[in-house]
Amino acid sequence: MKEVKVGLLGLGNIGTGSYKTLEMNREKIAAVAGADIRIVKILEREDKFDIERDINVTREQFTSDPEEIFNDPEIDIVIELLGGIEPASTFMLSAMNHGKSVVTANKAAVAASWRALNDAAKRNNVMFRFEAAVGGGIPILNALTTVLQANEYEEILGILNGTTNYILTQMTEYGLDYDEVLKIAQEKGFAEADPTADVEGIDVANKLSILMALAFDKYVPPTDIPTEGITKITKKKLDVAKANGCKVKLIASAKKVGDKIEYHVGPEELPVSHPLAGVSNEFNAVFVKGNAVDDLMFYGKGAGPLPTGSAVIGDVLEIAKTIAAHR
Amino acid sequence: MKEVKVGLLGLGNIGTGSYKTLEMNREKIAAVAGADIRIVKILEREDKFDIERDINVTREQFTSDPEEIFNDPEIDIVIELLGGIEPASTFMLSAMNHGKSVVTANKAAVAASWRALNDAAKRNNVMFRFEAAVGGGIPILNALTTVLQANEYEEILGILNGTTNYILTQMTEYGLDYDEVLKIAQEKGFAEADPTADVEGIDVANKLSILMALAFDKYVPPTDIPTEGITKITKKKLDVAKANGCKVKLIASAKKVGDKIEYHVGPEELPVSHPLAGVSNEFNAVFVKGNAVDDLMFYGKGAGPLPTGSAVIGDVLEIAKTIAAHR
Repeated sequence: MKEVKVGLLGLGNIGTGSYKTLEMNREKIAAVAGADIRIVKILEREDKFDIERDINVTREQFTSDPEEIFNDPEIDIVIELLGGIEPASTFMLSAMNHGKSVVTANKAAVAASWRALNDAAKRNNVMFRFEAAVGGGIPILNALTTVLQANEYEEILGILNGTTNYILTQMTEYGLDYDEVLKIAQEKGFAEADPTADVEGIDVANKLSILMALAFDKYVPPTDIPTEGITKITKKKLDVAKANGCKVKLIASAKKVGDKIEYHVGPEELPVSHPLAGVSNEFNAVFVKGNAVDDLMFYGKGAGPLPTGSAVIGDVLEIAKTIAAHR
Repeated sequence: MKEVKVGLLGLGNIGTGSYKTLEMNREKIAAVAGADIRIVKILEREDKFDIERDINVTREQFTSDPEEIFNDPEIDIVIELLGGIEPASTFMLSAMNHGKSVVTANKAAVAASWRALNDAAKRNNVMFRFEAAVGGGIPILNALTTVLQANEYEEILGILNGTTNYILTQMTEYGLDYDEVLKIAQEKGFAEADPTADVEGIDVANKLSILMALAFDKYVPPTDIPTEGITKITKKKLDVAKANGCKVKLIASAKKVGDKIEYHVGPEELPVSHPLAGVSNEFNAVFVKGNAVDDLMFYGKGAGPLPTGSAVIGDVLEIAKTIAAHR
């Protein structure tokens, strides 16, 4: 059987979830890809080599030197799961410049370094996929860039952050205030100790930047997207919305208006009849309007090690198919 | 610019919608495919050549002889939109045996002739795509056969017939009886004069057969799927469901239980909290549970000329990309 070898940058939560997805579905994935996909090298900090993890990984797979992965001629694909803009962006560029295809879940890096990364992929004739960066397990980017492309897209709306959707859902359902729910979310692990990137809408702006670049061929740096978070949402605002037959959701919005694209991130009142209004708690969803297909919605888990792992390994699988077909 | 030439079998509602989709988004589609896609020949009955249609089509494109399309060495792709099992199946086989890739929206033919069609595609090294056959514009088949394949699928549930979903929705919302709503649906064009294939679940069984073959690699002829329609649903049954916090939907269901797949088509009571319970009127939706991605739902228009055209031309576009890349 053919083999496709993979280097993995980062074995945190998402790295472990991706490793586990590959491990648990190895046989099926090999049959579909036409190749056995093996993660042969893993970049981690030395003090994290021996952390207890729920996967079969050996000491020999680890390295703390990224060059060992970039310079390994046997490695076809590099998965980047370090998070943050740097050094992730530089590492992805290095991998591509060494002829490796790249898969990432890192929305901050993809959105911030959009042109450099896509140019490098083209220049080096390698593949660059990042399905997990938007909507976690929801296969929205693949849909937008393949079978839906017979459409001109007219509107994209997304609920793209599980933490804020959880907070808004709990505030609405139990009549609680923002601060109370944030505390509960942090206790349950649904919100980070420093929740800024989530609650201020920064994470969502990264994802909208990527969606717009793909759907409208218009790259807007996330820092240029008008963005408002949910920290000013009060119990009272939600009650007023409810009285109007609406729910408040943190929405990423991009809409074609004439020749222009209008875009922003912020809380919006959606009528309860809107497909996105029923998306609760940690779930994400993307609503797409195309000029032929009309209204579509994609719904699923926007975070979590295995749902994100599904998207990461799905991308690896698509690349491996192509590599195996030419080997 | 490279050209990819297409022969179209059948210029009815869906044929016209597909033609129109290609016409209205021609520039974008050409840019994405890397080729100008042109429908050069159309098979129709002679008495239908001159029907008034809302598209730019000339007399010279028509033929009443399918061989003219199969034997045209310039034609790369054949779109089959005749409907019904025969002669559609035989025509698709002929097209493949003449080295042409095939796109179809015909669930009855794909489900009934599953093995013959897929074998012929493999044997002739051509592509065979049928996204529009299940869920109309919803890109579910592409998702199941590409980026989601890192999962073992555990369960697939679908609302896959707009006519029956419209009838059940109207019965529920207005407290009407089946016969009353069927009559309204027929008047509005949401149900055919002979609604048997829809209301008896036959159309849904065709779609479930295709979903199962792709998701579970298990082909079950649609006639072997236990199937119940909606003709026995009473106002009273819907009231009882409502009192239980449920909605009745016509569900296509396939579920992994141990090593077996359990499958059937029939009315089911779904709790209102289930993602499929909110899918109303002519909308379709598919719920997928994978062992990594967990719950996903895809929602959109399951019928209509343009939504179906979106899926048909999306498939043509994917094939054209491959053809253009090798030309």
